[in-house]
Amino acid sequence: MSVTPAPIPAAFLTEVAGIVGDAHVVRDPDRVASHTTDWTGRFTGATPAVVLPGSTAEVAGVVAACGRHGVALVPQGGNTGLVGGGVPLGGEVVLNLRRLDWLDPVDNAARAVTVGAGATLGALQDHARAAGLAYAVDLAARDSATVGGTIATNAGGLHVLRWGATRAQLLGIEAVLGDGSVVSHLAGLTKDNTGYDLAGLLCGSEGTLGVITAARLRLIPELPERTVALVGMTSVDAAVDAAGRWAVAVAGVDAIELFLRSGLELVCDATGTPDPLARPWPAYLLVEVSAHSDPTDHLAGVVAATAGVGDVAVGRTEAERARLWSYREAHTEAINRLGAPHKLDVSLPHNELAHFMATVGDTVAAVAPGAATWLFGHAGDGNVHVNVTGVAPGDEAVDDAVLRQVAGLGGSISAEHGIGTAKKAWLALNRSPAELAAFRSVRRALDPHGILNPAVLTPPTGRELAR
Amino acid sequence: MSVTPAPIPAAFLTEVAGIVGDAHVVRDPDRVASHTTDWTGRFTGATPAVVLPGSTAEVAGVVAACGRHGVALVPQGGNTGLVGGGVPLGGEVVLNLRRLDWLDPVDNAARAVTVGAGATLGALQDHARAAGLAYAVDLAARDSATVGGTIATNAGGLHVLRWGATRAQLLGIEAVLGDGSVVSHLAGLTKDNTGYDLAGLLCGSEGTLGVITAARLRLIPELPERTVALVGMTSVDAAVDAAGRWAVAVAGVDAIELFLRSGLELVCDATGTPDPLARPWPAYLLVEVSAHSDPTDHLAGVVAATAGVGDVAVGRTEAERARLWSYREAHTEAINRLGAPHKLDVSLPHNELAHFMATVGDTVAAVAPGAATWLFGHAGDGNVHVNVTGVAPGDEAVDDAVLRQVAGLGGSISAEHGIGTAKKAWLALNRSPAELAAFRSVRRALDPHGILNPAVLTPPTGRELAR
Repeated sequence: MSVTPAPIPAAFLTEVAGIVGDAHVVRDPDRVASHTTDWTGRFTGATPAVVLPGSTAEVAGVVAACGRHGVALVPQGGNTGLVGGGVPLGGEVVLNLRRLDWLDPVDNAARAVTVGAGATLGALQDHARAAGLAYAVDLAARDSATVGGTIATNAGGLHVLRWGATRAQLLGIEAVLGDGSVVSHLAGLTKDNTGYDLAGLLCGSEGTLGVITAARLRLIPELPERTVALVGMTSVDAAVDAAGRWAVAVAGVDAIELFLRSGLELVCDATGTPDPLARPWPAYLLVEVSAHSDPTDHLAGVVAATAGVGDVAVGRTEAERARLWSYREAHTEAINRLGAPHKLDVSLPHNELAHFMATVGDTVAAVAPGAATWLFGHAGDGNVHVNVTGVAPGDEAVDDAVLRQVAGLGGSISAEHGIGTAKKAWLALNRSPAELAAFRSVRRALDPHGILNPAVLTPPTGRELAR
Repeated sequence: MSVTPAPIPAAFLTEVAGIVGDAHVVRDPDRVASHTTDWTGRFTGATPAVVLPGSTAEVAGVVAACGRHGVALVPQGGNTGLVGGGVPLGGEVVLNLRRLDWLDPVDNAARAVTVGAGATLGALQDHARAAGLAYAVDLAARDSATVGGTIATNAGGLHVLRWGATRAQLLGIEAVLGDGSVVSHLAGLTKDNTGYDLAGLLCGSEGTLGVITAARLRLIPELPERTVALVGMTSVDAAVDAAGRWAVAVAGVDAIELFLRSGLELVCDATGTPDPLARPWPAYLLVEVSAHSDPTDHLAGVVAATAGVGDVAVGRTEAERARLWSYREAHTEAINRLGAPHKLDVSLPHNELAHFMATVGDTVAAVAPGAATWLFGHAGDGNVHVNVTGVAPGDEAVDDAVLRQVAGLGGSISAEHGIGTAKKAWLALNRSPAELAAFRSVRRALDPHGILNPAVLTPPTGRELAR
């Protein structure tokens, strides 16, 4: 389905150019293209203009103009989202925030920093490290994804188990609401009970409640000692059980990742690397620990005392750790070699995780007999990435079957990617009519003109339950 | 000022009695009294009835009836709030949630538990401990304060430095919104990006957006080894600086508390206990650390390497730790012996904390020359309890002067107690007209009839800035 740019009044463009400057209203099709297609190439929209404001005041001016003229907009950062939430699928104006890429000096005493929404995650991480601290959120798209985008989607990533997702890092926010007003609360006090948590509400709202322009973020200690263990497990059940125990028993655990024998063999074939352990095991856990002093003996002791543990490989140096991590990280690439997979990013209650992993392959096979199902993910968070190969890209039967199974087990149809436009049709599997009504009420309250990312997140009517 | 109960239609009471049962609509003045005065005795309201529902469905029925009849209500738990947010100061109906005191079995694999809003914090803590885990939030009112009340006020307490306030423990919530609808999202998945964070929004909303009926809460490991150090510091500046360093450098630090020589002498006089250290010091830090293995050597090493450290006392056994803590905890009682103090609960940016502590006494003296100012608090969180003795209870000049100084330094006028009715007049010192307008919009969205705690939190008009 091809999208056409929404018609906009000429007076609107003149007004917006007056606010941000002619050079920052982009209409040239060649330059617009990278803003209308998402980076996976799955979602392509169209826009009458990409607007790139250079300050919070300019953002406020543009949003107010959109409100006056009834022009819808899509806020956009690095355009690395995976659910079609940052591209103009309804022909909207694109409001790109990348120019707001300033970084205030790190406040070491407060372990915090204030940055513009357009700074990349990677720039923030480097900035924190230069001051002897670290930013807790990390993910593969770090050099393109912007701070504003990771806040708007409550990005998760590799360290949620220990430090929480983006919302847990957020000490304060500045944003432009749908009426063009600027809310700014960047003091970033650890304790501050002066009204509603607007920062937490905007975090994860996917551009529908406000345009994030800046944030105050907590920083964490850069811990000097780090150890990785790759552990062969006698069964998926044993692996899931061990993950739950280690989350409590291992001091300073940053990540507990899970993958299966089938995925490991695929990775070894694809990359030409040897089996990491002496013997094959049905399931594998990769555990990373960081601490003030060498955590290896402590980690090895807890692992050795756990039921269902087989062979163990331990990495201490950066090179050894990276080698062990590569078996987990190469899954995506190895699976992609089989053809573009259907990717489902779900989380399960811990006590349903092993059952889900044992049965989701059957769920897929029932609607797509020729398909193959690959499972890996963040076991410490109950988060499984379900990749299905051997089905046509547009065939949603697999997605529907898996997401219904997930919801039936009390799981989430979107663990970390968000709803966007791609999962809107299934949101009612996780959220009741009363919750959806509350979402719509809050949305109307903060975006009275209905101009902020209107195609995203909340289904347009109550009919979604009929699906 | 005496409050009279708001007039309510007879049909309303009949309807409510039909929902919760006659026995759970209390109008007897003797039984009503404990629900209309807060536990400090500072705030006394009046109510036509105290309603005690026994289930979420009954709560929803009562709220819907309030909406139909235009009857305002005040949600109430253990009535331990400190800012007049849980008593009927506008003559409202009291909706007391204590009967919802159920505790589901602890989910050890998920490190979480689902409980009713009426369970006390102490009951939740005991329940978690019996399963080998712990609940992170702790405060002195633990045996009266309810889970629902601590969520509604985003309660802080002793362990915010390490584990965050109540909002950080909240994995899911069930609540009745102002239109009587029930929103329930209790799966409590660590990763779940399916729409707005209603749980976080309701947390800290002080009963104005919904009536909390249940919650899913994360539990933490019960760590076996614990050490407390009481450290004499050569100056307040050095103490504040050390607190910032130790928050990063001390592994497993749970609390960093600060008090001054004047307060310690008052405590020693009041309790008849000896000076805890060999020599007197201008300021004191109390540090608590817990870990999987004995943290004493690590803590002692970091402390010894810090500038401005004088004498140190270390407590390892429970009795020794309690003895060191008592010097901090006895401050409240020792100050109360001088007469009922004005209590201000504020937080400051870390880099303003020492300056504030050095100058707030002058701020107080300028408006109340005969007053004495006592300072202690959670240095690791930038949270200072300012106690002022020697001024009349109703004299708000001291409060006004201190809160203005705090706001002028970028601090919060309410670190952990909330706004309630008591601090509403000063909220505009911390929140801009745009933020207050956003609060009002969200409030109208979730409480369209204006029946939920109408006297609390948001000032009624834009005139508050004139104060």
